[in-house]
Amino acid sequence: MTTESTDRLAERAARAALSRVAEPAEPAVIRSVVLHGALTVWEAVRGEGSVPGMTAAAVASVRARLPHDPGADLEALERVGGRFLIPGDDEWPSSLAVLAERSPIGLWVAGPAGLRDLGHQSVAMVGSRAATAYGEHVAADLAYGLAGRDWVVVSGGAYGIDGAAHRGALAAEGTTIAVLACGVDVSYPRGHERLFDRIRESGAVVSEWPPGCAPMRHRFLTRNRVIAALSPGTVVVEAGARSGARSTAREARQLDRVLMAVPGPVTSALSVGCHTLLRQEGVRCVTTAAEIIEEVGRIGDLAPLPRGAVEPRDALPPALRRVLEAVPLRAPATTDAIARIAGMAPSEVRSALGQLVAGGFVTPAAGGWRGAPKRKAAATAEAASLFDD
Amino acid sequence: MTTESTDRLAERAARAALSRVAEPAEPAVIRSVVLHGALTVWEAVRGEGSVPGMTAAAVASVRARLPHDPGADLEALERVGGRFLIPGDDEWPSSLAVLAERSPIGLWVAGPAGLRDLGHQSVAMVGSRAATAYGEHVAADLAYGLAGRDWVVVSGGAYGIDGAAHRGALAAEGTTIAVLACGVDVSYPRGHERLFDRIRESGAVVSEWPPGCAPMRHRFLTRNRVIAALSPGTVVVEAGARSGARSTAREARQLDRVLMAVPGPVTSALSVGCHTLLRQEGVRCVTTAAEIIEEVGRIGDLAPLPRGAVEPRDALPPALRRVLEAVPLRAPATTDAIARIAGMAPSEVRSALGQLVAGGFVTPAAGGWRGAPKRKAAATAEAASLFDD
Repeated sequence: MTTESTDRLAERAARAALSRVAEPAEPAVIRSVVLHGALTVWEAVRGEGSVPGMTAAAVASVRARLPHDPGADLEALERVGGRFLIPGDDEWPSSLAVLAERSPIGLWVAGPAGLRDLGHQSVAMVGSRAATAYGEHVAADLAYGLAGRDWVVVSGGAYGIDGAAHRGALAAEGTTIAVLACGVDVSYPRGHERLFDRIRESGAVVSEWPPGCAPMRHRFLTRNRVIAALSPGTVVVEAGARSGARSTAREARQLDRVLMAVPGPVTSALSVGCHTLLRQEGVRCVTTAAEIIEEVGRIGDLAPLPRGAVEPRDALPPALRRVLEAVPLRAPATTDAIARIAGMAPSEVRSALGQLVAGGFVTPAAGGWRGAPKRKAAATAEAASLFDD
Repeated sequence: MTTESTDRLAERAARAALSRVAEPAEPAVIRSVVLHGALTVWEAVRGEGSVPGMTAAAVASVRARLPHDPGADLEALERVGGRFLIPGDDEWPSSLAVLAERSPIGLWVAGPAGLRDLGHQSVAMVGSRAATAYGEHVAADLAYGLAGRDWVVVSGGAYGIDGAAHRGALAAEGTTIAVLACGVDVSYPRGHERLFDRIRESGAVVSEWPPGCAPMRHRFLTRNRVIAALSPGTVVVEAGARSGARSTAREARQLDRVLMAVPGPVTSALSVGCHTLLRQEGVRCVTTAAEIIEEVGRIGDLAPLPRGAVEPRDALPPALRRVLEAVPLRAPATTDAIARIAGMAPSEVRSALGQLVAGGFVTPAAGGWRGAPKRKAAATAEAASLFDD
């Protein structure tokens, strides 16, 4: 961070400060940052006038939370050897672009594992806290198999399936990422303190919330969207009829990620959630690490693609894909908004958008750009080949 | 049978005799009977010339098996209170029409349960002989739930899943049908002798093979097509990677029946076959009797149909449906062949075919008639309404 330009430093400081005032439960702040830029919002919040995209009541409640020392969180993080990532950083996971205006303001990270490529070769594994011995055994076994094949295992650090997944990956000396609903320096649950220490040594602990933040009920639900977005696929290992894992599953599905479920005994209440998922269209039944990789590899970049399954967008050069992923499917976004989501310069984005329109991937729309309707189908392999190097 | 016309009696006797000489393993006899009529084939077999549709070698081997007393099997059956059904009988299961030229020559039946409506409200339940306690528990439980809701449980009488399914249905005082690969008076496996006695008391034991026939390896595979065809849906409860239940599953799938599988622990070798099925397109995951009924009810006549799922052919009057089910999808069949498969008079069939062609369900083709290509899609609800009473 020492070699950063003054602008980047200011942007990073603004996002760090905003990630503190966005809490508890002020999604309007995230949205406003994505749409209008962190510096604009931070200046407005610190001032006395209105803040773009926020109601007066929301602004008042946010101002009440203004930190005494906006830089304190960053300094606290640096003391524990962590880092605060923002869009545009090399390490920023491009897979989060799918969240569009629900994208995190920034990510507080502790641990050596890089996050950039999580969208390519990682799997999210989630499930019940009150798991059975069967569920924990299967989660650990699948995670061991995935990590042994160099796939990163992403989970939420909770008791039960999450913990078993992290442990399975660590046992294979693989990489595992815990996405927490509290500060990366907070060990919650307490019984996982040593597990988090081990993850911080070889993998990474990640959070949207600044150091010291306590886990709160709503934060778990908010956090689940990040778990679902980071990885190309989510596996539900064991889940009761009302398990929180099903909220992550719902996010994965809405974000068009590969959603998988592991079957179990039909006599087990803890498998009811998995079987309910398996009865839905498009949810894949998986029983081994190889099957998980087969499912996720179908859309992944690095895994071998079965013949015929190549999407035209898979053939795009990285910069174009990055921009395409930042273009929303429904409401149009301006070039500047897309540049902020993609973490790229507006001039680069403008040129990329031109090529994406020519290829049938993006359509000009009132106020900006959006994904071409049914762009997967419309954009032919021939169009993609326009961009071949 | 005492009030039957002389023609019907002759037809029945010819089919009974042919069902003996068709064995072992002479599918050409079945095919020839379906295509040319039982009396023609029986006369030809008893004569000295050629038999239509059969090679000279096949004819020679069939003639070597000619029974000394062609009526002996029928008399033996009558002594044990059984009956021999042939196409055209009121009780003949119309669901078998889907087998076209693989349809049985006749069915030897012992027990009070009627077979006619099996295509409407029955479920076939199959699985491994070497089942686990889990598998047997689940099979019995599902069969109990199905029978308690007045669904007939069809299975193969074997040890393991089959036996548990029959027992579960009997425990609910429901109807269960055992389709055997030996004579209906033969108890195989021997350990199921008392189970077969109970099934013969309240349900039915059914076989293509005459009384006294021993179970033989190839007969099990041949028999599986009948289990799959009789019911609108087949559930595989527990199956290893190479279980014979998978041959029944394959038949169900090829016959366009609803194919369902029950999940189990991924750690169990006996669930591998079920999970492999669940990873295939279109195979439904079921965990309760209600879910099975929901799946099968979608195509059944008596079960409530979810809105929007009504097929035009479901709206056809029974006689037209019966003829339509007898019309092959691929190779054309003559009016007479269709009449034999449907078990109806050629004059009735001729009139029905006219209406089915007008409705877009059937197409005239070289040498006869066949199903209209994509007839499900092409035949509109409006066309079906032509036939409303």
